[in-house]
Amino acid sequence: MASKHYSNLDLINLVDSFPNAATHPVFHAERLGELSILVHDAHTLGYILPSVTAVLKDTKLSGTHWGFSGKVITLAGETVEERSENIRKTTESWRENGIFDVLRGWRNELYTVYSPKGHEYFRLERSACALFGVVTYGASVHMTAYTASPLKIWVPRRNPEKPTYGGLLDNTVAGGISSGTSVFETLVRESEEEASFPENLIREKARAVGHVSYFYQRMKTAGGEEGLFQPEVQYVYDLEVGNNVIPKPCDDEVQDFKLMDVGQVKAELAKGSFKPNCSLVLLDFFIRHGIITPENEPDYIEIGSRLHRLLEFPTR
Amino acid sequence: MASKHYSNLDLINLVDSFPNAATHPVFHAERLGELSILVHDAHTLGYILPSVTAVLKDTKLSGTHWGFSGKVITLAGETVEERSENIRKTTESWRENGIFDVLRGWRNELYTVYSPKGHEYFRLERSACALFGVVTYGASVHMTAYTASPLKIWVPRRNPEKPTYGGLLDNTVAGGISSGTSVFETLVRESEEEASFPENLIREKARAVGHVSYFYQRMKTAGGEEGLFQPEVQYVYDLEVGNNVIPKPCDDEVQDFKLMDVGQVKAELAKGSFKPNCSLVLLDFFIRHGIITPENEPDYIEIGSRLHRLLEFPTR
Repeated sequence: MASKHYSNLDLINLVDSFPNAATHPVFHAERLGELSILVHDAHTLGYILPSVTAVLKDTKLSGTHWGFSGKVITLAGETVEERSENIRKTTESWRENGIFDVLRGWRNELYTVYSPKGHEYFRLERSACALFGVVTYGASVHMTAYTASPLKIWVPRRNPEKPTYGGLLDNTVAGGISSGTSVFETLVRESEEEASFPENLIREKARAVGHVSYFYQRMKTAGGEEGLFQPEVQYVYDLEVGNNVIPKPCDDEVQDFKLMDVGQVKAELAKGSFKPNCSLVLLDFFIRHGIITPENEPDYIEIGSRLHRLLEFPTR
Repeated sequence: MASKHYSNLDLINLVDSFPNAATHPVFHAERLGELSILVHDAHTLGYILPSVTAVLKDTKLSGTHWGFSGKVITLAGETVEERSENIRKTTESWRENGIFDVLRGWRNELYTVYSPKGHEYFRLERSACALFGVVTYGASVHMTAYTASPLKIWVPRRNPEKPTYGGLLDNTVAGGISSGTSVFETLVRESEEEASFPENLIREKARAVGHVSYFYQRMKTAGGEEGLFQPEVQYVYDLEVGNNVIPKPCDDEVQDFKLMDVGQVKAELAKGSFKPNCSLVLLDFFIRHGIITPENEPDYIEIGSRLHRLLEFPTR
């Protein structure tokens, strides 16, 4: 049985799946017409599915938590704390009543949602972010550890028992940035927790090399309700290591690490073996390291642009 | 007298100046409402100012060269050759009659305009591209030559006699990709012509590292009419060199080269000393090399995304 072969652009399409206003204005307008928007001060903070809006309108809590005006939804509260409390009560009542499958992945981990220009607007349980379609800005850091000559990449396999994307391949280090933690300190912590990299190695050798951003509309494989909106930003780091540095699983996230050459990584990408958003970090790595070139990739420009999608929501 | 200080985001705004449909839908729609669009098969190939449309309608040539239907303009011709011939006759008659200042920079150099999906659609004199607002895809290659430790960058100063951006700083190598020439072969040729880099050095050591794209609406400093549309893509290369490799001017484009450290390059960027689109290539270099980081640049994500703008026109 022939298995599916994913081109590099296919891998982008899987993750950057919400229509782009620049290149697909009609699809974009049509999709926007179907949903509600979470708004603050004339700025759109997130997109909400009709099924979620219906539940939101139907949620009975004491006091005013939400405002509705046509397709526009607002979150009540004068301060970050008040707004965070309002959205917490709402989402906890949904969780207690088992309304959304996506909340079964409740993490007790708060993400920050920003309003322009980079002001903290409210904090929200991580697993509930997609219900409001807010940018999980600074949601994660992803690092590729590699040896330079020959170029080989340390690739972990996710624990098969993980509820999402269990058993798929991943980036060497990847982890979420919780409210109140800086990007680099998250990288240091996750590098130790996931790969047993010592702190001083990361502080001395990890290099910030940009970001990857995309607008994902969730598929079944992501768990929970289909169609939820997940605009995301990943901060990207490279770590060049010598042959004496060997990552080791530390927590139960990772099953094992393998040192793969470029051909093996490409083959696994084409088979769809990687967690979808991790494949984007590897495509960006291959572009920056001269593996994917204008000569060997017909969609070079589109791929490079879509790996850095400018999102229509406020940034941190 | 205090001189202007440009932030990194200011440098982007100077060059990526056409409103983005994702983040500024109202401005984008308003601007679109003012102009005509060059169309093929329901695909928009370029934007045309009302002043140019008026001249186009008024241009008398034997035979049919253009179609007009409301705001939609089409180029007549069944083949690439016929279309290229039609647009050549049109632009040459403008040039002979001295109608557009921008055509004083006539180069006798043809650029290719593509239709989806990557098919050559017509070829057009380089200096006339902005009149039709077509993407000068693959318009140029830009390379940064640098020494690694300490990190220093070879920066040329443009010949002060050049009609555009004379005397400003530039990327180590930068040059246009003419019709029929590949990206990498253009890099090899320009590296020899502009910096006297030997061919084998480029073939062995130059590394493709991505692209930079933006949508520029021309200002007075660009020469010719203001407001013309210039959506552009630059293929970006890095060249790490040792202390024994010294670029030397070969043609009359460059006055001299200086080896600047990161602090000097940053200071010249902030003073606006670089040719505007070259500053973007350096910002991308600083992001990829860990000089600009999430910790020291508040607009990190916006800058990284806007350096790779997804253009609303067909790609090569």
